Amino acid sequence: MSRLLIIGCGGVAQVAIRKCCQNSEVFTEIMIASRTKSKCDDLKAKLEGKTSTKIETAKVDADNVEELKELINAYKPDAVLNVALPYQDLTIMDACLVCGVDYIDTANYECEDTEDPKWRAIYEKRCKELGFTAYFDYSWQWAYQEKFKEAGLTAILGSGFDPGVTSVYSAYALKHYFDEIHTIDILDCNGGDHGYPFATNFNPEINLREVSANGSYWTDGHWVETKPMEWRAQYNFDQVGEKDMYLLHHEEIESLAKNIPGIKRIRFFMTFGQSYLTHMKCLEDVGMLRTDPIMVDGKEIVPIQVLKELLPDPASLGPRTVGKTNIGCIFTGVKDGKEKSIYIYNVCDHQECYKEVESQAISYTTGVPAMIGAMMVVKGLWKKPGVFNLEEMDPDPYMEALNKFGLPWQVVENPVPVDCYKTEDESVHMD
Amino acid sequence: MSRLLIIGCGGVAQVAIRKCCQNSEVFTEIMIASRTKSKCDDLKAKLEGKTSTKIETAKVDADNVEELKELINAYKPDAVLNVALPYQDLTIMDACLVCGVDYIDTANYECEDTEDPKWRAIYEKRCKELGFTAYFDYSWQWAYQEKFKEAGLTAILGSGFDPGVTSVYSAYALKHYFDEIHTIDILDCNGGDHGYPFATNFNPEINLREVSANGSYWTDGHWVETKPMEWRAQYNFDQVGEKDMYLLHHEEIESLAKNIPGIKRIRFFMTFGQSYLTHMKCLEDVGMLRTDPIMVDGKEIVPIQVLKELLPDPASLGPRTVGKTNIGCIFTGVKDGKEKSIYIYNVCDHQECYKEVESQAISYTTGVPAMIGAMMVVKGLWKKPGVFNLEEMDPDPYMEALNKFGLPWQVVENPVPVDCYKTEDESVHMD
Repeated sequence: MSRLLIIGCGGVAQVAIRKCCQNSEVFTEIMIASRTKSKCDDLKAKLEGKTSTKIETAKVDADNVEELKELINAYKPDAVLNVALPYQDLTIMDACLVCGVDYIDTANYECEDTEDPKWRAIYEKRCKELGFTAYFDYSWQWAYQEKFKEAGLTAILGSGFDPGVTSVYSAYALKHYFDEIHTIDILDCNGGDHGYPFATNFNPEINLREVSANGSYWTDGHWVETKPMEWRAQYNFDQVGEKDMYLLHHEEIESLAKNIPGIKRIRFFMTFGQSYLTHMKCLEDVGMLRTDPIMVDGKEIVPIQVLKELLPDPASLGPRTVGKTNIGCIFTGVKDGKEKSIYIYNVCDHQECYKEVESQAISYTTGVPAMIGAMMVVKGLWKKPGVFNLEEMDPDPYMEALNKFGLPWQVVENPVPVDCYKTEDESVHMD
Repeated sequence: MSRLLIIGCGGVAQVAIRKCCQNSEVFTEIMIASRTKSKCDDLKAKLEGKTSTKIETAKVDADNVEELKELINAYKPDAVLNVALPYQDLTIMDACLVCGVDYIDTANYECEDTEDPKWRAIYEKRCKELGFTAYFDYSWQWAYQEKFKEAGLTAILGSGFDPGVTSVYSAYALKHYFDEIHTIDILDCNGGDHGYPFATNFNPEINLREVSANGSYWTDGHWVETKPMEWRAQYNFDQVGEKDMYLLHHEEIESLAKNIPGIKRIRFFMTFGQSYLTHMKCLEDVGMLRTDPIMVDGKEIVPIQVLKELLPDPASLGPRTVGKTNIGCIFTGVKDGKEKSIYIYNVCDHQECYKEVESQAISYTTGVPAMIGAMMVVKGLWKKPGVFNLEEMDPDPYMEALNKFGLPWQVVENPVPVDCYKTEDESVHMD
């Protein structure tokens, strides 16, 4: 018996909501709130009659703490699941603190107005500390640690797949397979094919940032910043096949470096097809990814908005995407004095996801863990005062729920290790 | 002593005008006329004091026969050099006929409004006759043959490089090197580098048409239509090096098939760099080459216009383009019963052209032949009633002028032949 307030009604949110409704024993009542109430009402209409979860809807501006407080005080939920935009993490955390309600989200805070001088100053200080030229990190949300502790409230940060499940895999490996973990390689493979020459799963701006941002990895107690797409590896993924992948920065490597004792190296790799990268490069070359306005025929227009208009709507990719995702972690370390290595991963089929929840695997693999994170909190399984990343909590009930709710995992002993080399000179391999 | 009316003041026109001014003995007086008189005045200001050619300027709308007639009757030129748009060939020919003045142009007529039903009907009939799905051809201008003959006037069609010089090369080869020409391969190589990841020398729309249009070649008395970029060849060009080139349709192969007796095969190849083709393909894939309006943020916008705005202005490429062009024809045939083969070509340096006339080699190689064509007519060297392509005239004085005015040519005996193969399956070579 619980009441959950879910903020957001986009792709990931809709999967989380549908999954809550498959789990009515835990989620007896939910409220879906977003800026566009009609989206919430449409989804409610689709679900009603097929679930015993009682669904309510509301309109809320998640940038506005007062509106959020009013809504929370009116609905009196046991917890708030934030599946809105990462720009809104802090306003929602603020409202939860005031109203005395637990908090769960899926992605770390990002400042929307990166030119705001106050933000800029903190950001630049942080980059300097880490020796990085660009960085998005958990420090904004970790700063709420004392406030949540004092309020006796729980905040669970990043309960998606990566970050999220990858952290739970790490805690699980440490609990059951290792005395000490030395290295973690997170491998995010999307083997899906939507049949278009080029399309993006999200906003093209976010896709671009992934490809054009500097990467980073943690090694021997410090961060190493890499050039965009500087390191590449091929890997033969179970049920997907051989793919090219590239070393990127990703938020969970930050928290894992802090929370996994004795860890020596953490890397994150994501697959990108050559055609995807070529299109991105060509579009960048001609300026189509520019976010500043230009004048065309006397009209002010932002090039990336034109591109967004031309590209297939990401929501339209769901029904036509075939293939599978394979996301997981390769761990090396020692157990009882012996070196060992395991690979924990999930394989998810785009078409099966679509059949089940009308979303392909990209949204599915994030939305299901969002529901599970909320379940851990409202069931009291993960209930301690403070702000936590997932590797800080007991992984066992979460791992059990993954198997039950559509993201079953496998453990492979002695997997093929990742051999990573320089894109510009393939003879240079990373130690 | 002559008066020449030059219509147009764009990139090619400016080269032709500067070249006339280097040849004041022949062009004692010229008038530059265009829709934007200020462009003509600006160029006049640059040239005056450096030439003994007397320059006048005028405003004219080349779509308007009445305006053209008025201007011609007022200026009373010996000939009209049309270096305006190919859409305006017919109006200018009409005005010349009425006013009794000779006519020279550089590119065959194209209909601007391809949806006009009258044009459509003729076009489709012509495509059907030739067994082609798309076609731009000389038939519109050849239809003026009797009118020019009756008026005792000369019209010289296509006095650029290709078409133009390539036709003169053909006539020259036939006059001096062969009893019969069996094959002609026209090779258009631009080895220039402007240092941008992607830019177009002309309007991107025209560049796109080159790449995405069906190709064609003449063989054994009939036309063969090819898919876009279906046939490729590598060729090692003198002073440029090894380049990929593709078989395209090009207007001069049409007139050469008609005018070179006994010709068995004519092909046209143009070089394209892989990066250029990749950018074109990616831009096409995402719809950036679309010429129909779309709505972006409530504003109607044509994608290719956005691209034009983003790409470097073609005019800005001149000062930064380095490298050379190499354009010419490989002929095979018989002389005195023996098989033989020769290659006639010109090599042109982008930077040297820019130093001389503030245009790179693309405009230079078209603008110089435009001036020479006019010179042939006003000097009475090419003076016979009717409408003619360049291979129908005596090539010797034109070839002499090419050497004198910046486009020197070379003749190589026994050149390496073109080995052309299918892009999709390199084991299939053309006979």
